Amino acid sequence: MRLMDENTVTDAVLEQMANTPDPRLKEVMGALVRHLHAFAREVDLKPEEWLAGIAFLTAVGQKCTPHRQEFILLSDTLGLSTVVNALHDKRMAEATTTSSILGPYYRENAPSFRLGDSIAVKTHGQPIAIYGRVTNKKGEGIPNASIEIWQTNEEGDYDLQLEAADEMDMRGWFHADSDGRFYLRSVRPHAYRIPMDGPVGKLLTAQGRHGYRPAHIHFLIGAPGYREVVTAAYLGSDKYLETDTVFGVMPSLITETKAGDASSPFPDLPSLRFDFTLAARAAGEGTGRVGADVSKIGARLLT
Amino acid sequence: MRLMDENTVTDAVLEQMANTPDPRLKEVMGALVRHLHAFAREVDLKPEEWLAGIAFLTAVGQKCTPHRQEFILLSDTLGLSTVVNALHDKRMAEATTTSSILGPYYRENAPSFRLGDSIAVKTHGQPIAIYGRVTNKKGEGIPNASIEIWQTNEEGDYDLQLEAADEMDMRGWFHADSDGRFYLRSVRPHAYRIPMDGPVGKLLTAQGRHGYRPAHIHFLIGAPGYREVVTAAYLGSDKYLETDTVFGVMPSLITETKAGDASSPFPDLPSLRFDFTLAARAAGEGTGRVGADVSKIGARLLT
Repeated sequence: MRLMDENTVTDAVLEQMANTPDPRLKEVMGALVRHLHAFAREVDLKPEEWLAGIAFLTAVGQKCTPHRQEFILLSDTLGLSTVVNALHDKRMAEATTTSSILGPYYRENAPSFRLGDSIAVKTHGQPIAIYGRVTNKKGEGIPNASIEIWQTNEEGDYDLQLEAADEMDMRGWFHADSDGRFYLRSVRPHAYRIPMDGPVGKLLTAQGRHGYRPAHIHFLIGAPGYREVVTAAYLGSDKYLETDTVFGVMPSLITETKAGDASSPFPDLPSLRFDFTLAARAAGEGTGRVGADVSKIGARLLT
Repeated sequence: MRLMDENTVTDAVLEQMANTPDPRLKEVMGALVRHLHAFAREVDLKPEEWLAGIAFLTAVGQKCTPHRQEFILLSDTLGLSTVVNALHDKRMAEATTTSSILGPYYRENAPSFRLGDSIAVKTHGQPIAIYGRVTNKKGEGIPNASIEIWQTNEEGDYDLQLEAADEMDMRGWFHADSDGRFYLRSVRPHAYRIPMDGPVGKLLTAQGRHGYRPAHIHFLIGAPGYREVVTAAYLGSDKYLETDTVFGVMPSLITETKAGDASSPFPDLPSLRFDFTLAARAAGEGTGRVGADVSKIGARLLT
């Protein structure tokens, strides 16, 4: 009989997982167990702290609804989502637009629009134009590339946070023209506070964190034969750029609307230009991005 | 603006947590973030794997009910609970009975019995006697020590797993006599499989693990002025002793019933003797064990 202590139990667990048929599952779970145990040993985790952790994770899971994903929010606020995105960008052999976090407000089946339309169907605010081009590494436009976009209204609320959460607004699909160009209208998004009424918000409060994200616009860009890019454009004048509570701001993603932009399809509107570079996908390879996988997991998780 | 990559984001998170007023929360969360990020970097975690993890944790949280604690089950099957218990035992300055895992079947407000009573009120099975003594480090009996006990029936089911889950059976409270001695009757517990119909069971199946626990009897022992002990007695003849799916078996906790035990208060029954040593609690110190904290968290978590 093995004498089990706080160190030897780690090998006992790895031994019981040694016959995992899927080699990747074995690798990931083995590393998870080693790091999880190392964490508990490093802080000399107390039983009452362990139980508080169990209660916290249970509350996070029970806060999830078709309109709210509290575990993604937890991952975001712990910086894990940014680690995963940065690792993803590093694996790309070709230069590609920097990733940013998906966030908890992505929705499947957003409405489809034509180029030039406004995604601000119900909301009012300061009108802006958004335009740019989707290209490959050679700078060639990718015809018909899909551009999915979602953002807050002028008050900093996503549609999911409004009373009529079932009705979509401030989000939709576009397809680029034959030269990879896209253009649309919207209203200026606003900085906002992540939902503070759940367990994640309580944790941020206990940590003395403000919980704000700088104003930004989410993009999910894809095209057949290319890897999807999940990213966001951050408005350069926002005061929370340096202290984003979910660590999504990358220097290359900071931009700002420009007045009197002659090259904008809507020169009368403050216009935000944002171009995207997609990396080619190898034969037989998945999209490598989160978007496609969201649809596999389906409505139960994220709607 | 900080250039954020998979390494530098860790410092950015620690910086945002640097003003946490509670020093212990700061220490634990800081270590958690470092180990969590190190795990993701080590396995080069892919976005689709991250999302599978989010979906898994969400399912674990949503599987929790007043009658089922799937996150404790996850902690148990990953060996984390045993790490926490082993760390706890190591901190004890005085020798004490070795801890074992609380498990997901603990219930508050179990019925109170008198010494000699049987906790098998509704269930049938092979009658056994359980007896022993609760002492301090000097071997002196602790009068009136409380002994809480819970176990499966002969089929390997806890009351919580039966159709009438609201009715308690095979569990209860006793108080030791003036010499710290206790004795009661029960039926022989059986090895059982942890609930395999939830996300944790699916993970074990994917890992090729059998999911069984050897037959055992849970104990939560306490007395004013002493630290609580959460432990279990494991039946020595069980075939799953070496491969307990939750890593709860410690060599010093293995015992067996004995026929014709002249020192048993019930010499006609197969009798299991199990003695407990409690460590004194320092002034102003909490119980240091899980039991008391369970009641703080209350019915929502564990009932």
